[in-house]
Amino acid sequence: MKNHTLKNTLYVTIFGTHTKAGRAFDIALIIAIISSLVVLVLDSIPSVRAEWAKELKYLEYMFTGLFTIEYLVRLYCSPKPAAYAKSFYGVVDLLAILPTYLVLFFPSASFMGVIRALRVMRIFRILKLVRYLQESNILLRSLLMARRKIFIFFSTVAILVTIFGALIFVIEGPENGFTSIPKSIYWAIVTITTVGYGDLVPQTDLGKALASLTMLLGYSILAVPTGIFTAELHQEMQSHKVLVKCPNCSQSGHDSDAMHCKHCGSELADPDKRVVSAEKK
Amino acid sequence: MKNHTLKNTLYVTIFGTHTKAGRAFDIALIIAIISSLVVLVLDSIPSVRAEWAKELKYLEYMFTGLFTIEYLVRLYCSPKPAAYAKSFYGVVDLLAILPTYLVLFFPSASFMGVIRALRVMRIFRILKLVRYLQESNILLRSLLMARRKIFIFFSTVAILVTIFGALIFVIEGPENGFTSIPKSIYWAIVTITTVGYGDLVPQTDLGKALASLTMLLGYSILAVPTGIFTAELHQEMQSHKVLVKCPNCSQSGHDSDAMHCKHCGSELADPDKRVVSAEKK
Amino acid sequence: MKNHTLKNTLYVTIFGTHTKAGRAFDIALIIAIISSLVVLVLDSIPSVRAEWAKELKYLEYMFTGLFTIEYLVRLYCSPKPAAYAKSFYGVVDLLAILPTYLVLFFPSASFMGVIRALRVMRIFRILKLVRYLQESNILLRSLLMARRKIFIFFSTVAILVTIFGALIFVIEGPENGFTSIPKSIYWAIVTITTVGYGDLVPQTDLGKALASLTMLLGYSILAVPTGIFTAELHQEMQSHKVLVKCPNCSQSGHDSDAMHCKHCGSELADPDKRVVSAEKK
Amino acid sequence: MKNHTLKNTLYVTIFGTHTKAGRAFDIALIIAIISSLVVLVLDSIPSVRAEWAKELKYLEYMFTGLFTIEYLVRLYCSPKPAAYAKSFYGVVDLLAILPTYLVLFFPSASFMGVIRALRVMRIFRILKLVRYLQESNILLRSLLMARRKIFIFFSTVAILVTIFGALIFVIEGPENGFTSIPKSIYWAIVTITTVGYGDLVPQTDLGKALASLTMLLGYSILAVPTGIFTAELHQEMQSHKVLVKCPNCSQSGHDSDAMHCKHCGSELADPDKRVVSAEKK
Repeated sequence: MKNHTLKNTLYVTIFGTHTKAGRAFDIALIIAIISSLVVLVLDSIPSVRAEWAKELKYLEYMFTGLFTIEYLVRLYCSPKPAAYAKSFYGVVDLLAILPTYLVLFFPSASFMGVIRALRVMRIFRILKLVRYLQESNILLRSLLMARRKIFIFFSTVAILVTIFGALIFVIEGPENGFTSIPKSIYWAIVTITTVGYGDLVPQTDLGKALASLTMLLGYSILAVPTGIFTAELHQEMQSHKVLVKCPNCSQSGHDSDAMHCKHCGSELADPDKRVVSAEKK
Repeated sequence: MKNHTLKNTLYVTIFGTHTKAGRAFDIALIIAIISSLVVLVLDSIPSVRAEWAKELKYLEYMFTGLFTIEYLVRLYCSPKPAAYAKSFYGVVDLLAILPTYLVLFFPSASFMGVIRALRVMRIFRILKLVRYLQESNILLRSLLMARRKIFIFFSTVAILVTIFGALIFVIEGPENGFTSIPKSIYWAIVTITTVGYGDLVPQTDLGKALASLTMLLGYSILAVPTGIFTAELHQEMQSHKVLVKCPNCSQSGHDSDAMHCKHCGSELADPDKRVVSAEKK
Repeated sequence: MKNHTLKNTLYVTIFGTHTKAGRAFDIALIIAIISSLVVLVLDSIPSVRAEWAKELKYLEYMFTGLFTIEYLVRLYCSPKPAAYAKSFYGVVDLLAILPTYLVLFFPSASFMGVIRALRVMRIFRILKLVRYLQESNILLRSLLMARRKIFIFFSTVAILVTIFGALIFVIEGPENGFTSIPKSIYWAIVTITTVGYGDLVPQTDLGKALASLTMLLGYSILAVPTGIFTAELHQEMQSHKVLVKCPNCSQSGHDSDAMHCKHCGSELADPDKRVVSAEKK
Repeated sequence: MKNHTLKNTLYVTIFGTHTKAGRAFDIALIIAIISSLVVLVLDSIPSVRAEWAKELKYLEYMFTGLFTIEYLVRLYCSPKPAAYAKSFYGVVDLLAILPTYLVLFFPSASFMGVIRALRVMRIFRILKLVRYLQESNILLRSLLMARRKIFIFFSTVAILVTIFGALIFVIEGPENGFTSIPKSIYWAIVTITTVGYGDLVPQTDLGKALASLTMLLGYSILAVPTGIFTAELHQEMQSHKVLVKCPNCSQSGHDSDAMHCKHCGSELADPDKRVVSAEKK
């Protein structure tokens, strides 16, 4: 029984955010994640690495140790360990520690590329922070509601860059740097998104005319995802306004950031919690 | 009579999307289109072409054969073959096979440029995929409703880039790379769309001041197409909300992705179908 | 009396757009403007100029002659010639012919720069086309209503680029190409508008950090003009919807592109005319 | 008593904007700020500095003198001098004069870098202008209401550029210019914001594919801040419409730029004042 209580306390502290201990744990974890990312980034700078290699290595072992303990405790106190291990956060928590162990087990001389890749893969540790962005309910829901429109938009962009890439490949050809269709499609993407690196630019007059068309098109169709998302978000915000009811006088129409009922002044539920409950009903 | 039935079955399978066979045909066709595009793209990479030229050629012949059969069957089973042949999709289906045959009939040595162009023109095969994006009703209608505003926007942009191009031509002149007005207009388009290749940049102080003005203008007027499209889409989505009625209780106000009536719970028509019927009324 | 009638007929034809002759005149004028612009642009391309100098010169004289006649006739038939001459269109019509005459009167050897500038200034002839974009009522009114917000936005951008320009000037200094504050402000504008020519880039780590901040800021504040314009346009479109009344049943709520009353089917006034009348009331 | 009246008159003139003298003072101050900025900017151009060093120096001393007097008078006539000194404007007013004095007290030979930095820091004088942009109530309130959504957006962008930066670092490596993770993150920011300097571009095929993905992502997520701001601004504008009541007939629903009540024609309060009062209630 005592064991069960310990497990439960750990669960509330580690997975929950409402207790004081839970909040403290969250802040400590966020600091640990960011610190370990700083160590990783510093480790990638040749001049820093030359001087502090040893210290950075020990810090890295320390953080890996901490995240390993965190992972094991989560597995232990979770009511359904298998479900946690298979969930997005379970996988992210595992990925945060795995690369360091894999590097240890690999003979350091043999696969330099693989090891460098593994080292850098520790950057995915940053995804552990996603847990604390969960509150972005309304944004995610708007994106989700617009997913079909977004898919159509991306398909259209894919068709456009393929066609423009092929056309510039014919017009400019390998002599002007457009050596293959994939490379030409890369140019089309650089141009249509208005990034414009300038590492590959049309040299012929016809090529420049086509490039101008691509730019103007890219410039205009940017309006489409913006329009889709704005319209969805606006609708979402308005339907939310109608859905939230005051627990005291049960009138609705509250702004999305209202903390008190505008009719009777009673306190309203936390804005982001509210969205969730509105969704469930 | 049996012929008529075969024709009808073919028609429903090939042109329709509601039967099981129709869906299977669609998926097979999409896979064939994408595969043939992959072959075409691979064929344009010199290193791949050097090694796999023969295999890629045979695959290309196979896909052309398939699309030829598809085209003939569509012509055969369509109730109005002439109308189909003249429609957007009829032309696209023909364009998807024509280049390969034309290349065969041309003597390979003579018009290298033409042949390369013809080969690459097969990329328009990608437009066969547009058939499956037809669901983008609401997006297309918003664009269509905004077409006058969009035309005015593009005319304004055309006037602006012509004037800015001419001004930079006077200010910078051929000695700084602005050798003609068309080239200077190309610079103005590169700048106003915020692409900024950097292959042609002002060198004089006055030129830089003009470039700054062009950039700020481009940066701001981007708001115009976005605003137009967003406002139209929003209106479209709201009028849609009012138009759709529940078949059971005939109350309206359903969200654009609602599957069930929010008043009585009856199933609603498929969202995209719905838009069409609303349009027809 | 006859003179007066001729004057009136000319007025209706040249200034009006509702008669058949008026429409024909407009189309002819648009063709003449665009043709003269094509001549001007061709004249700026060295290779074309080398071969066709004479022909282009004669065409230019012809167009200048045409526009001179047009200007004189407009002055003659306008009820208030002085008001026309001082109006935007009067000035544009004069500017369209002035440069050619000025070039003739200048001794060709002396002021080469001035003459080249004068030649190119003929490009402002394109502004004669603005007359035919007058229909952009709703867009212009939205911009006008948002003019204070837009002014505040541009002031903010001006303050930001000045500060970021000065900071990068201190951080990078003349040794990395940032030779003066105006040049550094130019860099800040290139960066904040996401144009990114790449002709001037930070070399130090601190400079890169500042550049990253500038980019992210520029990327985000793009939302502000878009938001302002979208919100104004949306409100404009909705107030328009409420204002337009059917001349038969006098009910309102018509879409901005509706040609018939949605309640009784009577024909409605032309959409763009309608906006004007709504504005007057 | 007389002293008190002088103090009060000064206060109304300097801090207020409603009296004639107050308006005159504001305009004089704006001219002084802009002039002093022009002097500062000219001083940074080597060729101008070479010739006019002395004159620019004297002008600078004059402006510093003026701003010092302004600061002291503000301190004197403010009812709560300490509160003013600690407020945003108090700090800005102090910062506008401090650098010039600090430069005087520093031995000119020793810290060249510090002195140059101090000189340029006078640019923050531009923030004195912010006082006159205070009217941007509605824009600031929309941004403030959207601050949580904006924070989530920036966190997402930070996570994305870290991951994409690390991935390109692994793929391209130091041999293609991606020498460290911070530098690779800089590349990711340049790419995702669609700035695209082109000083650092992927060389490998895999790197180009990743860059394409980054661009498309950056191109699309630009929709998010725009959507957030537009939706908030729209809501703000509509709630404003409901809140403002006519002082005569007390009916609401006035447009944000209305100067007269649309029901009875009585004059309404100044639009921007109105927002403030609506906020206070």
